[in-house]
Amino acid sequence: MRENTTRPTVLPVAPSRGRLRPLGLDEVRITGGFWARRRHTNETATIGHCRDWMERVGWTGNFRAVAEGRIHQGRRGREFADSEIYKLLEAMSWQAAASDGSGTTLDAETAELTEAVASAQQPDGYLNTAFGHPGQQPRYSDLEWGHELYCYGHLIQAGVAQARARGEGELTKIARRAADHVCATFGPGGIEGVCGHPEIETALVELARLTGEQRYLDQAALFVDRRGHHALTDIEFGRVYFQDDVPVRDATVLRGHAVRALYLAAGAVDVAVETGDDALLAAVVRQWEAAVARRTYLTGGMGSHHRDESFGDDFVLPPDRAYSETCAGVASVMLSWRLLLATGEPRFADLAERTLFNVVATSPSEDGRAFFYANTLHRRARGAVPAADTDSPRAESSLRAPWFAVSCCPTNVARTLAQLPAYVATVDDHGVQLHQYADAEIATSLAGGHGVALRVRTDYPSGGAVTVRVVRSPDHPWTLSLRVPEWTAGAPASLVDPDGTRRTVPPGTAGVTRVFRPGDEVRLELPVTPRWIRADPRVDAVRGTVAVQRGPLVYCAESADLPDGRDVDAIRVDPSVKPQDVPDDTGGTVVVAGDIDAHAERPATGWPYEPLDRPVARSADRTEIVLVPYHSWANRGPSTMRVWLPTAELRTTEPRTTEPHPAEPRPTEP
Amino acid sequence: MRENTTRPTVLPVAPSRGRLRPLGLDEVRITGGFWARRRHTNETATIGHCRDWMERVGWTGNFRAVAEGRIHQGRRGREFADSEIYKLLEAMSWQAAASDGSGTTLDAETAELTEAVASAQQPDGYLNTAFGHPGQQPRYSDLEWGHELYCYGHLIQAGVAQARARGEGELTKIARRAADHVCATFGPGGIEGVCGHPEIETALVELARLTGEQRYLDQAALFVDRRGHHALTDIEFGRVYFQDDVPVRDATVLRGHAVRALYLAAGAVDVAVETGDDALLAAVVRQWEAAVARRTYLTGGMGSHHRDESFGDDFVLPPDRAYSETCAGVASVMLSWRLLLATGEPRFADLAERTLFNVVATSPSEDGRAFFYANTLHRRARGAVPAADTDSPRAESSLRAPWFAVSCCPTNVARTLAQLPAYVATVDDHGVQLHQYADAEIATSLAGGHGVALRVRTDYPSGGAVTVRVVRSPDHPWTLSLRVPEWTAGAPASLVDPDGTRRTVPPGTAGVTRVFRPGDEVRLELPVTPRWIRADPRVDAVRGTVAVQRGPLVYCAESADLPDGRDVDAIRVDPSVKPQDVPDDTGGTVVVAGDIDAHAERPATGWPYEPLDRPVARSADRTEIVLVPYHSWANRGPSTMRVWLPTAELRTTEPRTTEPHPAEPRPTEP
Repeated sequence: MRENTTRPTVLPVAPSRGRLRPLGLDEVRITGGFWARRRHTNETATIGHCRDWMERVGWTGNFRAVAEGRIHQGRRGREFADSEIYKLLEAMSWQAAASDGSGTTLDAETAELTEAVASAQQPDGYLNTAFGHPGQQPRYSDLEWGHELYCYGHLIQAGVAQARARGEGELTKIARRAADHVCATFGPGGIEGVCGHPEIETALVELARLTGEQRYLDQAALFVDRRGHHALTDIEFGRVYFQDDVPVRDATVLRGHAVRALYLAAGAVDVAVETGDDALLAAVVRQWEAAVARRTYLTGGMGSHHRDESFGDDFVLPPDRAYSETCAGVASVMLSWRLLLATGEPRFADLAERTLFNVVATSPSEDGRAFFYANTLHRRARGAVPAADTDSPRAESSLRAPWFAVSCCPTNVARTLAQLPAYVATVDDHGVQLHQYADAEIATSLAGGHGVALRVRTDYPSGGAVTVRVVRSPDHPWTLSLRVPEWTAGAPASLVDPDGTRRTVPPGTAGVTRVFRPGDEVRLELPVTPRWIRADPRVDAVRGTVAVQRGPLVYCAESADLPDGRDVDAIRVDPSVKPQDVPDDTGGTVVVAGDIDAHAERPATGWPYEPLDRPVARSADRTEIVLVPYHSWANRGPSTMRVWLPTAELRTTEPRTTEPHPAEPRPTEP
Repeated sequence: MRENTTRPTVLPVAPSRGRLRPLGLDEVRITGGFWARRRHTNETATIGHCRDWMERVGWTGNFRAVAEGRIHQGRRGREFADSEIYKLLEAMSWQAAASDGSGTTLDAETAELTEAVASAQQPDGYLNTAFGHPGQQPRYSDLEWGHELYCYGHLIQAGVAQARARGEGELTKIARRAADHVCATFGPGGIEGVCGHPEIETALVELARLTGEQRYLDQAALFVDRRGHHALTDIEFGRVYFQDDVPVRDATVLRGHAVRALYLAAGAVDVAVETGDDALLAAVVRQWEAAVARRTYLTGGMGSHHRDESFGDDFVLPPDRAYSETCAGVASVMLSWRLLLATGEPRFADLAERTLFNVVATSPSEDGRAFFYANTLHRRARGAVPAADTDSPRAESSLRAPWFAVSCCPTNVARTLAQLPAYVATVDDHGVQLHQYADAEIATSLAGGHGVALRVRTDYPSGGAVTVRVVRSPDHPWTLSLRVPEWTAGAPASLVDPDGTRRTVPPGTAGVTRVFRPGDEVRLELPVTPRWIRADPRVDAVRGTVAVQRGPLVYCAESADLPDGRDVDAIRVDPSVKPQDVPDDTGGTVVVAGDIDAHAERPATGWPYEPLDRPVARSADRTEIVLVPYHSWANRGPSTMRVWLPTAELRTTEPRTTEPHPAEPRPTEP
């Protein structure tokens, strides 16, 4: 690993070492296209939406109630509601840093919220509206479920965001006081506990990076090392739920509650990077590999269990019971980004891209004022229209809901979109690396302080051409590296260098090394034609089906696109015919050949299982089936949807009678 | 419907009207075979096992703690733990009635437990160890989750069992006092509530049947009618969880928590039968039909959601996330039995048979001292060996566990096996109907008091021949009816009458009407050859797979039967070859042709999705695969298991490029 020199940039994550050095929000701007639209909606709609809802449901009021000594009269929201204000504050800081206009408005709102938060902090730094005040349970009396340290984690991340984005202010000071209190209370000689929900680990490391204070890093390392030794009491879901079953460095796969697992892994990477603990880093990489290979949906979504919001066993990935929580998507991107910076390996950016387009971008509605908490891959029932004025269940409708009793996802989407430009590019001693493709302007400096500026132009992911124009460059050679996504395997990408020389580039990293001149252009051409995708046969739940992916986008069939009220569950596709882009479209729609099996829509009566030797009844109307990007579904009213599309059933041959197969008899009944 | 005349028989369910009249445990004895072995284990192992565990975990002690005024010092178990003692008491009464030897031992244990229960009953009849005592929440302060009425339901069922099986005793008196208290408290002018867990409805009707007291029936009817009108407050799972979303008579399908839904439906049938409410009965039949057609596993198991133990949406039946709670199986049998008595339709006995053999019989281990709470159809991970001395999670291992924190299933299995002989046969004005096949002796009287006695001999379900010998008969003609199971469709059964005349009989009911003489034999020959079964294509989770059923038994592949540590997930079967009974075996084992795909066992690394145009790698070792009855799995140590067996993957043809399919463009991005 290389050492990163400290620079005053607006960095969400600022490791002191690593293969790649991240760029700040002052160094990368996203100027157009898919993510610019999403970020604009985030700034103009989602942040205010979250702010309004938290006032309305009383979560911001909790802080004032503590200050006024009346919190025992009825605190509002779940035990972790404080954290939502902190996540929103974090989002506001990052967004303000990159804002073209409303930065000052965001700053004013930040100041107002910060004042409320400050009023509830105790003289010793303790800050939580659910515990420790007259009439409440004592501080730290329920580490399993109390979320006090989890809330500090988000507070600290917000404080760091403020310091980096707007300069150290009141929020940063509140966060430091809280962190000092945590070190005093949970440090050596203090409570030997951890939080039921990891999150403070990554936050404390970032605070250490910001302040240079070793004790924050030490405390984070202590929390990481304590977990897995039954630091918490057992619960109904088992200690695996909060990763207290096995120490981080011994675990072989991500497991338990998905968001908890991923936040912990992110924190462990941070600790490993700052302490030079290569064994710990290797352990997390191993867990990431196993989770990606066996416990991840095609969308990048993680976590199939509704019951405990957890990863399931290997290959238990039912699309119609996918939980794939939005926050797990956010956390997965956090983890992948940290692993990318530490290792430089493009596979981490590959997963981040997939997850950003198909999980993070799927959660918010077009207007940014409603959200999916769970991101199922198959919706069979339209469900009720979510309430407009009260919170909604997490996974009960085919429509996004404005708010939830556990409303972690909206603010997590907001803070992710706010810091998104930071994921676009990095630098190292040899040059600049592009990881995510968007219209962007990049201005930074290479080793030795030589300025470099790039302009990226693309209509990705609709189109596959990415043009990088050099605006400013040192006079000596350096390398411009571009990620060639894993999804190009078998459909090769091309790279055109400033001379016009074209070469095929395999998945991984493609680089151009030369003395660049302003005006030089490098062009990456990615084959964003739609393709049929199949799953490992061990993903039993999608056997006999195929999906369509186009570039990084996963597609789906939605009932809104079917004729005459036909339903997605009657679709059968013909995978011998290639999926096609719809001509004259913006690149968003695909059609596939198939039919709609009227028999599959017959009223379901009787017993749904039958001997195989009965003829299969089918009544197929050959048709074209329109597919839309998965992230865009459910913006046209209640609908049903599926990502994995059944192929026509196997033709059943009449069973042949053969001789009995002798085998050892075994008794089966006592 | 016909009126049933009151007779002093040991009847678990004694409707005053209905198409069929049930027989008591004094009229039907199971004398050998599958169910006799299960019942022997129940009597000699399971009942004592439950008794010991409830003493050990302190649930029986709760009653003594109430009596001694120290319950506030630490009541043990969940809020509904009292009900487990009642269910065990019910089991002990039914079992004692049919016992050849240990009835007196069971009576002594009943007396001891009853004394503890009695000591905790309050002067006004209130009886619950979790509420209403000093230091506890007030009575009926949490109808959603408190389970007080639910516990009364099981107490009343135990009291009825005692009265019917052993004559009215102390337990019956306790139950009546409790029921009187319920009527006084929840009757007209009282609390207008219902219990979050239905159960008291069916119990109150049975008490009304026992005592002739109309007010118990009225109270049950009131509880049934109140539900569905938001009688309970909303909860995270929604009111659908406790069927308070829609009135019983308006609902179209069983939904929400499966056990709650099925107990409620059973109670509604009881109310409908006693009050002559045909519309209510029809509503339940409609819900049963819809649930069977769309929300039931091949095993008869109901409920796929782990999160809220509920039915899922139609066709959401993932085998690897099947919950299929044992208690839902018990409750389903209760419901089907009531519907069979009311309507006489054999389809209800068909489902009861399937559920008894594949859910109820699957839960207990061979030794009767460990249980499955959930009955998954696909177990991918061996999991940990359950703790021998503490309670276990409900669905975390491939092995049965001796006890659970929520341990509803063991006592429910015990009371079901204890009353099982009552499910074998019924009478009506025309004769005797056999519904379930087992070695049995039946002695009852037909209309007019004419005695009839039958002896049934069979090795069902290993063999398909059922011989019914007439031991005693009136001198006039009557009809012996035999259920021809639905699973014989396409593989006809035969009936041989006393003359030796053989005829093919279709699924439904086959009857022989004549003047029977002692020694006459009727023989039903059921084709218990193994058959391939497929599912409705809307059961997405089992697409591309087949299952094997042999008679009423569902089969499964278990890793214990595979060579060299190979795993069930690598199995591919060839459904063009008929499954075969293993010769010289007792009829318990089946072999199928197939292969084990070595490629499917490769280490899972990388990304588990790939373009369809890549060649499918398979490495198939042709082999025979041994299948065992599903109910017998997991008796040989930790293993993996699957009911639905993949067929070889579809051969993928190279995609043809065709002309683009024009379609209307639609915008997908804002």
